[in-house]
Amino acid sequence: MSIDFLALANPGVPGLHPYQPGKPVEELERELGISHSVKLASNENPLGPGPKAIAAIQKALPELARYPDANGFGLKTALAGKLGVNTDQLILGNGSNELIDLLFHTFVGPQQEVVYSQYTFIVYALATQAHGAQAVEVPAVDCGHDLDAMAAAITPSTRLVCITNPNNPTGTFLTKEEVKAFMGRVPEQVLVVLDEAYTEYVAEDERLPSIDWLKQYPNLIVSRTFSKAYGLAGLRVGYMVCHPELVGVLNRVREPFNCNSLALAAAEAALSDEAYLAEAVALNNQGMAMYEAFFKERGLKYIPSRANFITLDLERDVAPVYQALLREGVIVRPIAGYGLPTCLRISIGLEAENRRCIEALKKVLG
Amino acid sequence: MSIDFLALANPGVPGLHPYQPGKPVEELERELGISHSVKLASNENPLGPGPKAIAAIQKALPELARYPDANGFGLKTALAGKLGVNTDQLILGNGSNELIDLLFHTFVGPQQEVVYSQYTFIVYALATQAHGAQAVEVPAVDCGHDLDAMAAAITPSTRLVCITNPNNPTGTFLTKEEVKAFMGRVPEQVLVVLDEAYTEYVAEDERLPSIDWLKQYPNLIVSRTFSKAYGLAGLRVGYMVCHPELVGVLNRVREPFNCNSLALAAAEAALSDEAYLAEAVALNNQGMAMYEAFFKERGLKYIPSRANFITLDLERDVAPVYQALLREGVIVRPIAGYGLPTCLRISIGLEAENRRCIEALKKVLG
Repeated sequence: MSIDFLALANPGVPGLHPYQPGKPVEELERELGISHSVKLASNENPLGPGPKAIAAIQKALPELARYPDANGFGLKTALAGKLGVNTDQLILGNGSNELIDLLFHTFVGPQQEVVYSQYTFIVYALATQAHGAQAVEVPAVDCGHDLDAMAAAITPSTRLVCITNPNNPTGTFLTKEEVKAFMGRVPEQVLVVLDEAYTEYVAEDERLPSIDWLKQYPNLIVSRTFSKAYGLAGLRVGYMVCHPELVGVLNRVREPFNCNSLALAAAEAALSDEAYLAEAVALNNQGMAMYEAFFKERGLKYIPSRANFITLDLERDVAPVYQALLREGVIVRPIAGYGLPTCLRISIGLEAENRRCIEALKKVLG
Repeated sequence: MSIDFLALANPGVPGLHPYQPGKPVEELERELGISHSVKLASNENPLGPGPKAIAAIQKALPELARYPDANGFGLKTALAGKLGVNTDQLILGNGSNELIDLLFHTFVGPQQEVVYSQYTFIVYALATQAHGAQAVEVPAVDCGHDLDAMAAAITPSTRLVCITNPNNPTGTFLTKEEVKAFMGRVPEQVLVVLDEAYTEYVAEDERLPSIDWLKQYPNLIVSRTFSKAYGLAGLRVGYMVCHPELVGVLNRVREPFNCNSLALAAAEAALSDEAYLAEAVALNNQGMAMYEAFFKERGLKYIPSRANFITLDLERDVAPVYQALLREGVIVRPIAGYGLPTCLRISIGLEAENRRCIEALKKVLG
């Protein structure tokens, strides 16, 4: 075998590192000789999927040998009604990750700059690299976006600005006034993707009226997901809301059957399950308060969060603490890969899971 | 609104046309004032999903709020066992369509040539256009691949050659001798994707030993799907088998959670459901024989097919016939978009569906 595949690959590819998936829980347990571990590592909804979503899946099973509706008519209609937009402003994806990649495939290439914040969702950096574009990573302030510096970083070569709000993996939050003021400073030909994967966890009166802003800013793209508060991470469904002509361009590049049938059915049903969403948010608020109280009591430094996780800063290398927690059967997420080697991100779980995590932290931290 | 989004898009995008999805059956029925129509348009498995796949989905439902296994450990292990390869030779996709796009994202760019046949799966032409590469479409012979001409079309700029076998939308078939001889003529640095979406419908003694060839040809990529004979089109799951170093490069670009949890579980179970697969193939063989007998009896021209569809060539514009069949409640696929305006592609259905299609054809053709 004499082929150097990497030499054949497109310019950005050699700089990418293959994704290192977290070990499946079963494998970790086997390695560590533990059982009944709790996984608070991937910002998943601890309630499991909602009853309406499950019922919709059951109903859709007999048709599974048919291709999905390439237009996602049912889900788009439900989303349009809920958000107060037209269906032609919506594009559905195999998780919002696919839509972010689609945005890059469609609009980003070499010689163009992509502006994003230090300590933000890693997919933006990866997509920039994969497309051979120029990354403009703007230093964070208090582990969150510095919008003034981001606005100042925009040049005539900037094609896309990425904002994650609340931010992952730090949980920091930009107010509606801050983001609105920022949008006013962005030239119209620069696209702005506002990734609101965690917006359902933000209190309603503080949530950004980002959908309303679309009327004023045709360069704004709002990204949302069913993987967090809606509890459907396993099925992969996200969406973007933006100008219909922008949707039209993205649809030229989108794979027609990118959303699977069960995802379409379950997401449509989940959208109407107000009780489930309310329970998920209430549970998250309670868990968040429990962690905050514990961290304050112990004098532990943490980053205040508006999402479904909280990031603890131990101000020293957390690798040994992460390993010690694993041996206690508690799986959290070290985020050294994000440039935060002193931080552990803890997803908010069920009450018993949170208690177990706190007990394990007490034991490990002494 | 003053943004010309198309002007902002990457070079290949303006030449793409937005996908025109077929109308959902319910909408067609409403428009035509018909009911109980039969859909023989998308080469779907008429049996519906198999019992083992459904059972695996049921079992996986409670974990749907968790992200899928980014490594697809269970499905890859099952596939590796079945195919006699190592798991590191496998990459899983959201349908094989995603993997084809991934192959292009990773290896194809402007200044490179992609060789494919006239009348082959349209995704190859679309992906070539989307990546701004040079399409080298080789004229077909008898509606199938002309491998001699394709080998002759390879230049130092050729990055990828695409072969669909059996071919969609014509059903033509290349023998193992023909493809083996072709591979011997392809320079090692030219990648060859052999798309075998319909291979399970080919008689075992005629099926290509393509997986065995991987040892000899590190530039060969075999693409397969669970959307056809395995009856899981709605869930979206396909795979490619190739050199492990090639998998490694593709994994740098792949979205980590591209395969949903239910697809992984259902495909793994479907792979072990020999009875379902045998029934699907037997049903297809019976249906194919029924259409062939009818076409011969009527002196209608058709393209002999090894897939789960048969293409009828009426040697005149088929649009009126397509419309007339619709009014009879029979939905087939006109393939003018493939450059075959005199042809109708008919997917093999259940026996009663095939009878109904034949009766409708008798009535419409007079």
